[in-house]
Amino acid sequence: MIPADFSHLLEEPNFGVLGTVRPDNTVQVNPMWFEFDGASLRFTHTTQRAKFRNLRHNPSMSLVVFDPEAPHRYIELRGRLTEAIADPTGAFYVRLGKRYGNAGQQAPADSDVRVILVMNIDKVITH
Amino acid sequence: MIPADFSHLLEEPNFGVLGTVRPDNTVQVNPMWFEFDGASLRFTHTTQRAKFRNLRHNPSMSLVVFDPEAPHRYIELRGRLTEAIADPTGAFYVRLGKRYGNAGQQAPADSDVRVILVMNIDKVITH
Repeated sequence: MIPADFSHLLEEPNFGVLGTVRPDNTVQVNPMWFEFDGASLRFTHTTQRAKFRNLRHNPSMSLVVFDPEAPHRYIELRGRLTEAIADPTGAFYVRLGKRYGNAGQQAPADSDVRVILVMNIDKVITH
Repeated sequence: MIPADFSHLLEEPNFGVLGTVRPDNTVQVNPMWFEFDGASLRFTHTTQRAKFRNLRHNPSMSLVVFDPEAPHRYIELRGRLTEAIADPTGAFYVRLGKRYGNAGQQAPADSDVRVILVMNIDKVITH
C-alpha cells in the first residue's frame, strides 16, 4: 500500500500535517504527531478541541508528510476517522512523545479527555 | 497581523501545507511553495488540477508552515481565495522557483494554464 521508497517518511518521527473540515465547510490544517502500523494512522487528541468536533461532523481526514531534507518529496494519505478510543491515562500520548524524541515524556494534564484517533487509509498519493 | 517571532517562517523559503475542500466535502492537503507580501499569500497553480476545481466550489484555504528545526512551532493562516490571476508566461512560477533555491529556474511546460492563487488572511494562529 505504501511505496517502499516512501515508507521511511512514516517510520521516522516526522511531523505530519492533518487536514479536517469544520462544520461550516471551511478547512483546518494542523501539524500532528502520528504512528503508522502498516494499515492505519493513529493520533493523540482530546474530545475538547475543534478537530474532534470537526470529525464528529465530517470524518474526512488527510495527512501530508514530507521529507524535511527534500520537501518536494511527500506522501499524502487520504481516509477517514474510524474510531476514537479513550486514552484516560495518556499512555498513547506518552508513546508518541517518546517516538518524537522525548525519552522522559510524562502523561499530559488533560489525560482524562485524551483520545486516540484512528484513521483508515483509502488512498495514497506520492510525489 | 503576523507575530514578530513567527514572521521568519513566512519569509524563509519553507514549504507550506495547504488545505482545501473537495466538492464531495472531503479534505485535500498538499505541500506548496508560497510568497507572502505582508497581507496576502500567493501560490502558483494551474487551472487543470484538482485544487483549482476544489477552490471554484469552495474558496476556503488554510496554510500551515512549521519550523523545520523545531516543528512544534508553527503558524496557521486561514482565509479564502480572492483571485486567480493568469500567469501565461510562468513568470510567477519562475519567481517562486528562485525563492526556493533554484537560481536557474525555467518556466514550466504548462505555463499556458498557470495561475497565481491569491489568498486573503482572515485569521492567524500560532503555536
